Amino acid sequence: MPQIKAINHVAIVVEDMAKPLAFWRDALGLELHELRDVPAEKSQIAFLPVGNGEVELVRPTSDDSGIAKYLAKRGQGMHHFCLEVDDIEGMMSQLKAKNIRLINEEPRTSADGKKYAFIHPESTGGVLVELYQL
Amino acid sequence: MPQIKAINHVAIVVEDMAKPLAFWRDALGLELHELRDVPAEKSQIAFLPVGNGEVELVRPTSDDSGIAKYLAKRGQGMHHFCLEVDDIEGMMSQLKAKNIRLINEEPRTSADGKKYAFIHPESTGGVLVELYQL
Repeated sequence: MPQIKAINHVAIVVEDMAKPLAFWRDALGLELHELRDVPAEKSQIAFLPVGNGEVELVRPTSDDSGIAKYLAKRGQGMHHFCLEVDDIEGMMSQLKAKNIRLINEEPRTSADGKKYAFIHPESTGGVLVELYQL
Repeated sequence: MPQIKAINHVAIVVEDMAKPLAFWRDALGLELHELRDVPAEKSQIAFLPVGNGEVELVRPTSDDSGIAKYLAKRGQGMHHFCLEVDDIEGMMSQLKAKNIRLINEEPRTSADGKKYAFIHPESTGGVLVELYQL
């Protein structure tokens, strides 16, 4: 049986980086591990490790991206949170068999080889949930 | 220096328990550790452990509670997420010195002896953040 192993990260969509970094990095003391431009997602992402997981701050760099539209509609706040799973294909099959509404029917693979998929908020209690497998 | 140790839990406010439990417990396979009535918060809370943390589903049991008003205004979704800290008093002093907007100026103590405090979304990028110390 596929298993959920941990909460991996929480992603927060922000209007700009300065004020959130003044909290997460400067006041709370988290390390800013990387501030990465992600042209494919028209975003800049700040990665701040927390224990075995991390907080991600996501800032749209274009007005026409999905994340920019999300920000315009809902304002700053949680975008999604991500759970680590040991067998993403197995878990996706299990979710389909239970009629869970998925955003990605099959796992995608990121540039660094990580497999991931998103689950629709309609099935989860209103939150966008990402599954990923290393 | 006080340190953040881990993401402890993600709390999701829900209209009812049946559909979210069909996802989190029945489809994703998390254990429903406890379904607890919390009269002081006019809520019922489902605790589902994930690794060293947990997902919490919070359902208002009265229309006049803070959580019910949050649900009425924003709909289902993320309510807050919680970080474990090793020295909450030290961290609160550090946040005050950095002019972070707090909801609790001093830590509160829960029935089970856990110290906790909330940080205002205005300072964090739009998310309600809880700090807690065991």
